[in-house]
Amino acid sequence: MTTLESIKEYLQMLNPAELKKNLKDISTQDLIENWDDLSEEEEKVIFRNLPLDMKIDLMDSLSAKDQEDIIRNLTDGGITGIKQLLKEMEPDDLVDIIQSASPDVRKSVWENLSDDVKKEMIFLLKFDEDDAAGLMTPRYIAIKSNITVGQALKFIRGQHAKDVETLYIIYVVDQLKRLIGLVSLRDLLEHEDDEIIKNIMETDIISVHDDTDQEETAKIFITYGFLAVPVVDENNVLLGIVTYDDIIDVIREEQTEDVYKMGAMTGEIEPYLETSIWGMVKKRVPWLVVLLFLGTITTNVLAHYESIVLGAAFLFIFMPVITQTGGNVSNQSSALMIRGLATGEIEGEDMWRILLKEMVIGLLMGLITGAAIFFRGVLFPPEITIFQGIAIAVSLCFVVVFSTVLGAFAPLLIHKMGFDPTVMSGPLLSTFIDVCGLSIYFEITKIILNKF
Amino acid sequence: MTTLESIKEYLQMLNPAELKKNLKDISTQDLIENWDDLSEEEEKVIFRNLPLDMKIDLMDSLSAKDQEDIIRNLTDGGITGIKQLLKEMEPDDLVDIIQSASPDVRKSVWENLSDDVKKEMIFLLKFDEDDAAGLMTPRYIAIKSNITVGQALKFIRGQHAKDVETLYIIYVVDQLKRLIGLVSLRDLLEHEDDEIIKNIMETDIISVHDDTDQEETAKIFITYGFLAVPVVDENNVLLGIVTYDDIIDVIREEQTEDVYKMGAMTGEIEPYLETSIWGMVKKRVPWLVVLLFLGTITTNVLAHYESIVLGAAFLFIFMPVITQTGGNVSNQSSALMIRGLATGEIEGEDMWRILLKEMVIGLLMGLITGAAIFFRGVLFPPEITIFQGIAIAVSLCFVVVFSTVLGAFAPLLIHKMGFDPTVMSGPLLSTFIDVCGLSIYFEITKIILNKF
Repeated sequence: MTTLESIKEYLQMLNPAELKKNLKDISTQDLIENWDDLSEEEEKVIFRNLPLDMKIDLMDSLSAKDQEDIIRNLTDGGITGIKQLLKEMEPDDLVDIIQSASPDVRKSVWENLSDDVKKEMIFLLKFDEDDAAGLMTPRYIAIKSNITVGQALKFIRGQHAKDVETLYIIYVVDQLKRLIGLVSLRDLLEHEDDEIIKNIMETDIISVHDDTDQEETAKIFITYGFLAVPVVDENNVLLGIVTYDDIIDVIREEQTEDVYKMGAMTGEIEPYLETSIWGMVKKRVPWLVVLLFLGTITTNVLAHYESIVLGAAFLFIFMPVITQTGGNVSNQSSALMIRGLATGEIEGEDMWRILLKEMVIGLLMGLITGAAIFFRGVLFPPEITIFQGIAIAVSLCFVVVFSTVLGAFAPLLIHKMGFDPTVMSGPLLSTFIDVCGLSIYFEITKIILNKF
Repeated sequence: MTTLESIKEYLQMLNPAELKKNLKDISTQDLIENWDDLSEEEEKVIFRNLPLDMKIDLMDSLSAKDQEDIIRNLTDGGITGIKQLLKEMEPDDLVDIIQSASPDVRKSVWENLSDDVKKEMIFLLKFDEDDAAGLMTPRYIAIKSNITVGQALKFIRGQHAKDVETLYIIYVVDQLKRLIGLVSLRDLLEHEDDEIIKNIMETDIISVHDDTDQEETAKIFITYGFLAVPVVDENNVLLGIVTYDDIIDVIREEQTEDVYKMGAMTGEIEPYLETSIWGMVKKRVPWLVVLLFLGTITTNVLAHYESIVLGAAFLFIFMPVITQTGGNVSNQSSALMIRGLATGEIEGEDMWRILLKEMVIGLLMGLITGAAIFFRGVLFPPEITIFQGIAIAVSLCFVVVFSTVLGAFAPLLIHKMGFDPTVMSGPLLSTFIDVCGLSIYFEITKIILNKF
């Protein structure tokens, strides 16, 4: 069996005709999954000799960066093939490339577009990348409501439908291009040819506006399991459609964004291996330094309690485990809140009820972890006295209650204020918990030590 | 306009005929999005009076728990409607309900299934929930390769295709039901009626095995943007198909699972508001206690260095910011690795190259954060001497390099060992970093303080 691997091995020995023949024999899956293993030079030679349908399949599944590389390589060596490739690409993918490409690539892409596609691009570029309209394609099938099923099917099978992204949802519009209904191809096939569209179309339509956020758009797909959602303007005029495959990309992208935020990183998301060392440092160091300065508030807190610690060294050795546990419980509650808010299960109005619930949960967890640290401290080396154990356990219990409630409160509050609750997750929250947790720890132990 | 809200308000005053009429007028979107706001009693009355198509749409978009509630309610009050509803449900959804329902509901569902569906259920229940086969539906269209496009279209429009989940991908099988090709409905429509399927079918097929993990299956959808993927057994016999809407659910589910793991929580995922206080404590406390015991290793570490600290109190006040920074950098590298592994961008074989890169990145970040803590310590209260500042800065630099590399190494190693790298994220890693970070901190400062 011919594989990309074997072609790669004999690449030098193959003349263009042989290479073309061999490439026809490999599977698209093999090509796509092993594309990253090719050197830039190999990519260039192989791409040029692929059959057009494989070129398009490959382009569709590559990252924006890889797409840009291919287009740059194609344009470098003359324009053979690029016009055809650009013509076959989906306009929503094409607009992404134009938006993210470097100026030289953008220019050569633009020069190789047909006039029709240029018009589409000018239309699509008006919209914000992160809105529903930034995901949409203007290539859909729209019909009038007074035609028959037979006429509609004929239209779909005709030349007009060749370029659309999906044949499976057909939109019904009025004279002013306002969306008044839709039929699936399935509905059409299940009805007789002489049925009028008006009588079978679905009028209870779920659509999004051009400025609906892409995350909101994704939620609609997730709730309803749609294949495509129509995008309309404020007058209900149909602008385009968003299809499920773009939404899968959005869901993945948002996931990566969340990971970035939880890891306290800034800037655009780029594949790890393709980012330079200095590029990575620039993404990672700004937040680190900010968190470091915030974290040094603990330095002042500890300086304040220094005399207590010098008089009771057992307080010092339990310090890290107290702040760790506080960080862990706040992590748990904030993760639950962020998740609940993202899925829509938790809403702002539930806030007080949730905080009360978290307080009770925190108290129970505080008692259990307090008991755990008491036995650990008293029974295992470096052993502490029962009295010292009680002081540690009681203060841990307070820290746990506080951290549990704060871990839930912070994301809920940020959400209520209209921001993304993820910013309050992880590092920033745990820095704050450290500062407060240490103060609580020393205040409580001070009271206990002074009292008895 | 009739809304669910308005119906809810007048629910007591409406007789069943009026209620039915009003419910017909509300939009499905309104119904689905506001369903959670109804009381159990309202849900019962309203569901019973919905038109069948809205019942099915609603069921499709509810969580497994809500689906179970509805079925329990329907069976409680006699079986009117349930047979019809179960008949219309997708078999992959139905099998999920049977798997997750309580025994009494399962029994009454089973009793109300038609013989055909029972057969399907017995077939589907053989497979593991978390594998590709657990997501598949056995209701697809399969044709032979020697028929014409016209015959295929006629078959699709006929009664046989009424119940299938999608009409849009048609599978071509041989006499032994082995998968040999596929055509999209689109392909069929774009060809002449007398064309033979064999000549137009796609034979370069991407399929999954029945025991392919659902996460792997999701990756295929993400890479290729498919509408459906066929599931085959070891002999390439077609068992069923997985459709994109089930994959969107998988992606969301895996996301929630990751949040659980990063938040150090155990057990089944349940909606926050529906979980009891004690249920939440049970999910959250086991890991907390484990982490607490692991974390007390720091207690022994600090006990070991107690004498140094009593002689140099400035070491004590910078301790939290050192461990925080170590935790933050390890968080960043582990987040990048886990993400890269999940998207398939990073593979096991890249390990050493990545660790080297992280070491250089760590060194640069160590120098920058070291400089930051030096100036912070020397210039702001509680001021330390330049010599003390250097000691803190140098040791922070070492901690940062170590934590950066370890944060990348841990998930890569876990992945190489064949486990899910997410278990090494967040809490467990930062507990470990605390232990090592403190040792490094004190060892380095000890050397510096002794030398000069």
